[in-house]
Amino acid sequence: MKQFRKELWFETHSRRQIINITGQVAQCLQESGIIHGLLLCNAMHITASVFINDDESGLHQDFEVWLEGLAPEKPYSRYKHNGYEDNADAHLKRTIMGREVVVAVTDGKLDLGPWEQIFYGEFDGKRKKRVLVKIIGE
Amino acid sequence: MKQFRKELWFETHSRRQIINITGQVAQCLQESGIIHGLLLCNAMHITASVFINDDESGLHQDFEVWLEGLAPEKPYSRYKHNGYEDNADAHLKRTIMGREVVVAVTDGKLDLGPWEQIFYGEFDGKRKKRVLVKIIGE
Amino acid sequence: MKQFRKELWFETHSRRQIINITGQVAQCLQESGIIHGLLLCNAMHITASVFINDDESGLHQDFEVWLEGLAPEKPYSRYKHNGYEDNADAHLKRTIMGREVVVAVTDGKLDLGPWEQIFYGEFDGKRKKRVLVKIIGE
Repeated sequence: MKQFRKELWFETHSRRQIINITGQVAQCLQESGIIHGLLLCNAMHITASVFINDDESGLHQDFEVWLEGLAPEKPYSRYKHNGYEDNADAHLKRTIMGREVVVAVTDGKLDLGPWEQIFYGEFDGKRKKRVLVKIIGE
Repeated sequence: MKQFRKELWFETHSRRQIINITGQVAQCLQESGIIHGLLLCNAMHITASVFINDDESGLHQDFEVWLEGLAPEKPYSRYKHNGYEDNADAHLKRTIMGREVVVAVTDGKLDLGPWEQIFYGEFDGKRKKRVLVKIIGE
Repeated sequence: MKQFRKELWFETHSRRQIINITGQVAQCLQESGIIHGLLLCNAMHITASVFINDDESGLHQDFEVWLEGLAPEKPYSRYKHNGYEDNADAHLKRTIMGREVVVAVTDGKLDLGPWEQIFYGEFDGKRKKRVLVKIIGE
């Protein structure tokens, strides 16, 4: 069994941002030399997400509006978590979007459907945060 | 390490439908000959879901009503994604329900709890779409 | 390839409760002797969740209020599932929180970010229920 581990770092300029990381994850897979297996990609922070969806800017704006509706950022006082922090909404938004994806590795490639792209979803940005890529297989 | 890969195809007659695929996934596991490992089952389309819950028709109706409340299909104009498309709600509904499940394989069987069943959740159907089953183990 | 399987049992005193199980999961990993691999931790019941977030009591109260807003427990008659049962809301709440987490195993340890903790989320408690830990690797 082979295994591979790498951290990807991100620092967004705004509080919330969606970044397509499919190319970076595919690069990890290539470095690993693994041909068949499973790839885990997860946010290492609890106010961020790794998810799979469509790379379409209208949809990404829809996500922003929709998540603000389900878990509004303000007023900060609406959340008990916001004593010393102001990011309770980010914990909830990331819960909706998910912490991680597991992707099949087949013939040395990410075994994704035609429109599947991997995204980093940042909900409390403007600081350095990490994504973990772990691959096991042969 | 052994590995197995198979695609399952579905074409629903309605826009939204929930289909129990536990038997088909168990059949994949049997074909694989894998005794201990991990099984990934994921929608290959970004407007569909694979999830685990109860095979109870009342609950499935509850899911329909609940998801329509959280991410209504109409009016289509409420979503920016719906320029050439009308399926933004399906992207959001699938986000709630999840893209994938990972199931333990133990003694050659799906290691599920007593009521756990695997479902394909279609939110933009009436066309052929795929689910991926990938298994690694021994 | 090595593999390890263990069930963790929980019985909460209230209908809903969040329990930090990171220590018990780490103990499983130690028992397994696995150094590099993937660890699956999933609820074996469809009204409970395993998820990763922050171990902060204010946030856990926010989850309670937020989930009650998205999928209220009462009136029980609002859900079709609630014929003989009263736990439809628990199926929906667990859907939001997620069934499972997959965690990387690196150098014999749970490869978690600094604030990542693993939780059992119970949404229909007061009875014995199980979590599955399955680890594969070397």
